[in-house]
Amino acid sequence: MRKIGIDIGGTKMLGVVVESHDETHSVVDEVRVAAPVGGDIVPQIVAFVRSMGGAHTVGVGIAGLVRNDDVVVTTTHLPNVRGLELRGALESELGVPARVDNDATCAAVAEWRLGSARGIDEALVVTIGTGIGGGAIVGGRVVRGAHGFAGEFGHMVVVRDGESCPCGRRGCWECYASGRGISQSAGGIRAEDVLQRFVDGDEAARECVDSYAAWVALGLFDLTSAFDPSRIVLGGGLGARHEVLPLIDAHFRTTFAGHAGRDLPQIVNATLGYRAGAIGAAFVGAGD
Amino acid sequence: MRKIGIDIGGTKMLGVVVESHDETHSVVDEVRVAAPVGGDIVPQIVAFVRSMGGAHTVGVGIAGLVRNDDVVVTTTHLPNVRGLELRGALESELGVPARVDNDATCAAVAEWRLGSARGIDEALVVTIGTGIGGGAIVGGRVVRGAHGFAGEFGHMVVVRDGESCPCGRRGCWECYASGRGISQSAGGIRAEDVLQRFVDGDEAARECVDSYAAWVALGLFDLTSAFDPSRIVLGGGLGARHEVLPLIDAHFRTTFAGHAGRDLPQIVNATLGYRAGAIGAAFVGAGD
Repeated sequence: MRKIGIDIGGTKMLGVVVESHDETHSVVDEVRVAAPVGGDIVPQIVAFVRSMGGAHTVGVGIAGLVRNDDVVVTTTHLPNVRGLELRGALESELGVPARVDNDATCAAVAEWRLGSARGIDEALVVTIGTGIGGGAIVGGRVVRGAHGFAGEFGHMVVVRDGESCPCGRRGCWECYASGRGISQSAGGIRAEDVLQRFVDGDEAARECVDSYAAWVALGLFDLTSAFDPSRIVLGGGLGARHEVLPLIDAHFRTTFAGHAGRDLPQIVNATLGYRAGAIGAAFVGAGD
Repeated sequence: MRKIGIDIGGTKMLGVVVESHDETHSVVDEVRVAAPVGGDIVPQIVAFVRSMGGAHTVGVGIAGLVRNDDVVVTTTHLPNVRGLELRGALESELGVPARVDNDATCAAVAEWRLGSARGIDEALVVTIGTGIGGGAIVGGRVVRGAHGFAGEFGHMVVVRDGESCPCGRRGCWECYASGRGISQSAGGIRAEDVLQRFVDGDEAARECVDSYAAWVALGLFDLTSAFDPSRIVLGGGLGARHEVLPLIDAHFRTTFAGHAGRDLPQIVNATLGYRAGAIGAAFVGAGD
């Protein structure tokens, strides 16, 4: 079976073609084009799918809240999709089953199907970049929640009356445990540059990264209390950085030390990189 | 089918008999005896089950961490059960299937089967008393996690480096959103007395209860971000107090106001009262 998955980002659309035979899945093609910047996005997505040669199923991942009925409720950067019944529009144009989901949920599906959470029935995938997204696997199924908004981990409040979040609330986890958090604690230096200085051995950068790691660990701790996963996968541009994992892991186990006798999850980096969202979208399109 | 459920508390064991015919379940008997205070608890539980006339299945709820293989990892008040394979011991003595689980998980099962979360596939049950416990229902199944420790909601950290928790960590949700939290903010007055003064119209008591309600709402918010339930059931001696629900609900919706367009769960009180743990244990014993 041939599945197309599309991850629509702020500037680019990444499309992948996944060929599946029984339980064997291969990514056989990968195409990148400019993201829609205006107008009706449906024909732009349809043209992109056709340029890749079509498929039996199509999945689309979008940064924003996507309801279980595939209606986009909010999105940060995509024009003219709010309230759009994107699924129905794509299906009628393409004549094949389509699904639309949150991009971080798609990334979680990908890591669970082909990446670091493969074969794990109780897992969490947390994607950390500018903000935080993610998805939970419970009983070998992706948790979508009653309305489709499960896995909005970045908006757990970890500091009451804390930093202002772009979502309109205060003290969300992603204000602290993200690129934004690193940059803020480093006096405005870009998170990527702080990380490079940390890798190069700079002590001030190490303190910023360690502070970030402690905030990441705190949220992972809260999620572990709720879900009790056997593995946590850290993805996204920042989460997948293997140099930071030992710091996060150390804080996680220190914070948990009071709970003697309790089994703790492994914490590992994601493996699928920038393609996770598109690969996951392909699986979502096919029913995951 | 005749199911016995036993909730072992600090001072009493409550046993119930549930008669089930297809999807109809009735609580037909209820017995209370002193909790085990020492010695081998297995014969004491066995004698209790026999005194109730026996059953086809037996479930036991215990305050503490209970692993998925029914081994009690930690418990706050029960003597000589740490590391005990209670399930196997009960089954060989009684000759019927037995299960052991956390008491708050049992309460969640009960509310889902017969109480305020009946028929809800995506629900959270949060029990609030001296501390906080609970359970999540995802896709119509109780979430137990990889090891059996899911639903330890009370130990989510909501204040980094906050109040000391009996669990050994700091800033756990149950330090603030519980009877302990109310009592502390009221200068040591018992939570029950603070609540009574609040009901009687005392302004200082109202402030304490409102502060508690805000902390409850904060944690429910975090859980909603992760699970996206359609209903949250508040149980336990404190959580089930209907006089406090409007305050919690108001804080919940205020805190969430930044997230326009997002469907929010209903928040309701539990209905099964002090029997929830025992009733849920009966269902857990029968396979829930």
